Formats: sequence, C-alpha cells, structure tokens
Amino acid sequence: MINPNTSKKINKLPKPNNKQLLEGILNSDRTALSRAITLVESELKKDRKNANQLLQKCLPHSGNSIRIGITGIPGVGKSTFIEALGNHLIDFGKKVAVLAIDPSSSINKGSILGDKTRMESLVKQNNAYIRPSAAGNSLGGVAKKTKESILLCEAAGYDVILIETVGIGQSETLVHSMVDFFLLLKIAGSGDELQGMKRGIIEMTDAIVINKADGDNVKNAQLAKKEFQKALHLYPPKENQWIPKVLTCSAIQNLGIEAIWELILEFIYLGKKTNYFNSNRINQNKEWLNYLISNQLLYEFENNEQILKNLPLYLEKIQNNEITPFIAAEELMQFFK
Amino acid sequence: MINPNTSKKINKLPKPNNKQLLEGILNSDRTALSRAITLVESELKKDRKNANQLLQKCLPHSGNSIRIGITGIPGVGKSTFIEALGNHLIDFGKKVAVLAIDPSSSINKGSILGDKTRMESLVKQNNAYIRPSAAGNSLGGVAKKTKESILLCEAAGYDVILIETVGIGQSETLVHSMVDFFLLLKIAGSGDELQGMKRGIIEMTDAIVINKADGDNVKNAQLAKKEFQKALHLYPPKENQWIPKVLTCSAIQNLGIEAIWELILEFIYLGKKTNYFNSNRINQNKEWLNYLISNQLLYEFENNEQILKNLPLYLEKIQNNEITPFIAAEELMQFFK
Repeated sequence: MINPNTSKKINKLPKPNNKQLLEGILNSDRTALSRAITLVESELKKDRKNANQLLQKCLPHSGNSIRIGITGIPGVGKSTFIEALGNHLIDFGKKVAVLAIDPSSSINKGSILGDKTRMESLVKQNNAYIRPSAAGNSLGGVAKKTKESILLCEAAGYDVILIETVGIGQSETLVHSMVDFFLLLKIAGSGDELQGMKRGIIEMTDAIVINKADGDNVKNAQLAKKEFQKALHLYPPKENQWIPKVLTCSAIQNLGIEAIWELILEFIYLGKKTNYFNSNRINQNKEWLNYLISNQLLYEFENNEQILKNLPLYLEKIQNNEITPFIAAEELMQFFK
Repeated sequence: MINPNTSKKINKLPKPNNKQLLEGILNSDRTALSRAITLVESELKKDRKNANQLLQKCLPHSGNSIRIGITGIPGVGKSTFIEALGNHLIDFGKKVAVLAIDPSSSINKGSILGDKTRMESLVKQNNAYIRPSAAGNSLGGVAKKTKESILLCEAAGYDVILIETVGIGQSETLVHSMVDFFLLLKIAGSGDELQGMKRGIIEMTDAIVINKADGDNVKNAQLAKKEFQKALHLYPPKENQWIPKVLTCSAIQNLGIEAIWELILEFIYLGKKTNYFNSNRINQNKEWLNYLISNQLLYEFENNEQILKNLPLYLEKIQNNEITPFIAAEELMQFFK
C-alpha cells in the first residue's frame, strides 16, 4: 500500500522551512505533514533541532485525537481491518491517520500480496492520511519517532490515529505506551497462529478482536471469543479497572466494525469520566521522558570508544562463566569514565 | 520466621576477611554465608570491592543448583508452601536455601500471623538456609543483590535455591531473570485475589500451583486448574517450547508437593537435554550486565546536581503539557554533559 502523499517525489521539492511546515500542517496539508514526519524521523543533528522546534510549535494544537494501537501477526488481516475501520470513521465525518511501524508490516507486504487493491479505497479518501514506516530505519528508531508523528498528525487535525504494528517484535511495548487503546487482532485457529506472537501482548490489550468471522469460520470465531473471554477473567484487572473485551468481526465483509468502534468510544468515555484518560497521557509522557533519557545514556555508553573495544571481551568472559556480571559491569563503567 | 543464622548477633562478631568468608562458604558454614550476603548487600564502596572479589572467587563453585522463583500475593500460603517443598527436598537429601526478597513479604508478616510455628520445622533443618531480605533496603536494591546471593548459596553447596517474592511489586521481572523455573502460587477464589496481582506475571510462569486444595476447597481448586489450563493454551508458547502447567496442592496437608517437584525436574531435564538450561543462564547473565549498566547510568544521571535541580521543573512542564518529552529529554541531557 503506497500513499501518494508519502511517495518519494515530494522529497525532490525544495525543503520548506519550519514556518511553512507549521502553516501547512495547521492547514491539514498532507504533503507538509509528510515532510514534517520525514523531518522528525531524520537522525541528522540540524534536522533534530528543527524537528524539536516544530514539535514544540505543534504541541498546543495536539492531543485532540483518539490514539489506537492495532497489533497482530501477519495474516490476521490488519490492512483490511484498518481500512474497514478507517472508512467507517470517515463515513462518520472523522479524519483518520494511519501510522505503520514495522518495516516488514503487512502494509508493505500487503502491496505485494494484493492488499493494495483492498486498501486503495482508504488511500483515496481526502480525510485519510497513511504513512508506512520509513524502510531502513531500525525498529526501535521507527517506533521511537511514531510518538512524535502522532503529535504532528493531531496538529494537522486528524481525529483518530491508528498505529499498526506486527505483534512479533519489540515495538509493541513502545506503541502500547503511546496509545489510549490497544487492540489485538487475531483469527480463530488451531493455535498455530500463536507461534510467532510475542508473549506479553495479551496482557497489554484492551480488546481482542477475532477477525475473519465469516462463512464457515463464524463458529470457530465464536468459540475462540468465548475462550478468550474466559481466559481474560483470570487476569488481574487493569489500573483503570477496564476488563478487556473480546469481539469478532469480518473486516473484508465489513461486519462488526461498528461494534468495535462503539467499544472504543465506551472505553474513552469511561476514561474521560474518571480522568484516567488524561492522567494516563501525562504518565505516558513522563515515562517517555525516562525512556528517551535511558536510551540516550545507553547509546552514548555503547558508542564510547573504550566500551566498543572492551565490551566484546567481557561478553565472552561471561559466556565462558569466567567473570560475574557484577564485576564486568563495574569494570566497564570504569572504562566509560 | 526468624532464622537464627541471620539474627543480628552475628554482626557483632569481629568482621572476617574475604579469605575466611570464602573458606567458611566452601565449608557450608551458614554464619559465613550470612555475613557474605550482608557484605554483598552493603552499598559501601569498600564493601562493594570486597564483595566483588569474593563473588569472583565463588564463581567457579557456583551454578550447580536449581533456581526456583516462587511468587504469589499475601495470603496464598507461600511460607507454608516453601516449607513443605523445602522439607520434601531435604528428605531426599537435598540442601535448600530460601531467599525472600520483599521486605513486606509473608516471611516477615508470617511471623506476626503465626506462620512462624509452621516454618520452624524448616528453620531447624541442618540442610536449610533461610535469608529474609534485609528490611529498609529499596525493593529494587534487594532484588538486585539476590542474584549475587544465589551465587554465594551455590558456592556453599545448596542444591535448590527458592526465591520468594510477593507478586505485587516490581521485583518479579528481576527475579524471573535470575531463576531457572518460575512458579506462581494461587488459591481458587472469586477472582478477588487477582486485584493486587501485578499484570504480566501469568505470562512469566512455568507453572501455576493452586494451593489450599483441601477440604471443601478441593472442588474449587480443580475447577480453577481447568480454567487456567485452558487459558494458558491461548498464550504463545515459550522460547523453550515449554507449555506452562497447572497443578493443585495443599501445602498445609503436604499434598501434591511431590508432583510439583517432579514437574520442576521434568522441566530441568528437558532444558538440559536441549541445552536451553545453559544458554538461558548465559543469556540471563548478559542481560544482567545490561541491567546493571543501565541502572548505574540512570543512577548517575538522576543524582547529578544539575539534573536534581532541573528535572522537577521539566516534569512540571510535561504535566502541564507545556513541553514535549523530546525537547525535555534533549535539554536535560545538555545539563548532564
């Protein structure tokens, strides 16, 4: 699935300055939004500075969206589901942005497998913006920048931000920490589909949606729904007392999409009533600060000349049980000073 | 439950040097072991140096135990369970060490609530060593030192190390990363007992044991067992392909303890056959190195004078949505340099 707004052509235009970008974003210009996201994704020092200034300018215009994380392993129909949900929201007058994180996600693979045709209806919508993650970036890097992209999309007036990840990598925890609602898409099956899935995801979800509940599959999907409903009751409740729900849908036949949206709205409504919604977002920002700082400290450590030279030796000693990790850590810290 | 070996009296004896401590440990002297654990728990710089030397000397004598993490919220009968399992192992000629991490754990509370009487049979055993965590230490701090204490206990010849945590804090993930087998103790109930439990624990467990399966409770326990068995099948499998098992027991009536131990042995046997057991321990040590370094870097950051002064201002700005976490992180990193 390729969004014409994010195609490479735009990068050949002269680089707009921050003022132009901000103006464009606030006018909901998708080209400006794309360029701004490219800017925040850049690792160049001068781009970083511009990006931060732009983000700070966008901050007062941000926050007014519902941020939804959608995860599921390849094959569960994420692209189809996102298109169905996106079109449903646009029919209700919403503006929808889709940010896809994993470079190997179904959005990219989908275009090869024929998903492109199905997704094309969403791409063509004036009120949709779709941004696949820049290929070549490290996974952590892409997910890291997604939080910044959310802010830009919000400043551009998008009401709902859908963030897609493949539930097999390291990005899910990060995405979970930047969304209001986290949805796991599954299909009913023999359990084989669990093989690739990352442990821990089920406990993060606010809803499990069993897709492809159509034709001969309806019965299986209903059965899976019941099983998950029972299983989720064995979990400790979430901080906000929300008990994760299980729903079925057929994204391809557009069945059950409305009920999913209503469930999300119920969750948001409850969260705003109890103030969990806001306090959660503030906590997410504080945790994000922590994450960025830890990340930066570790980056500087790992790229220190002395550490680059000595770390492999220490790892080998640990591998051979010749040194305790306690001494290894203290000695490495000495090199770093 | 107070272990005479860890009572305060021993700290009034003249401080033994590292050579004496090592000799004592290798001779399985519990007083020496206790003093060594006190040494590794110390935050004093000169103690740290001695502790690391001692640990390094113990390293060649360590590793020959089965390390078992046991978690469960207060009231599930952890003390009784540990005593039953410990005595069972001692009857089979094993030496058993118990390390309890949470300062508010049932081991401490238990002595008030009358658990002391029940646990006393284990305390009296020559082949048992019990070490409650030093009160007053931070939770992370205690758990951090537990990995070092494991090594000392192994050098002192303990065959099985039982590490107890209360499943409501931050220590479970840490403990999970230092044990071979992670066991969650539960009781059958209305689900209320889940309230205090930390999310994410169920996905870490290698076995769930439903305790207090005696008298009128047997039926409930059996039902809970079935429910959990079904639920665990909905999880993605673990890296080692182990499917977590669910068992019932009555620790107080000593029922089902043998089956639990056999399950653990089966797990260890499979792990050694596939080499997962060893590779997992090496990975745990490498991850521990990472953990120690990240921890130290963050500690130095948070205790930097400029950061101490400025961090609260930035957190307030984030709280009021006046600054993005991205800029806050970059500006704080500037103060740190």
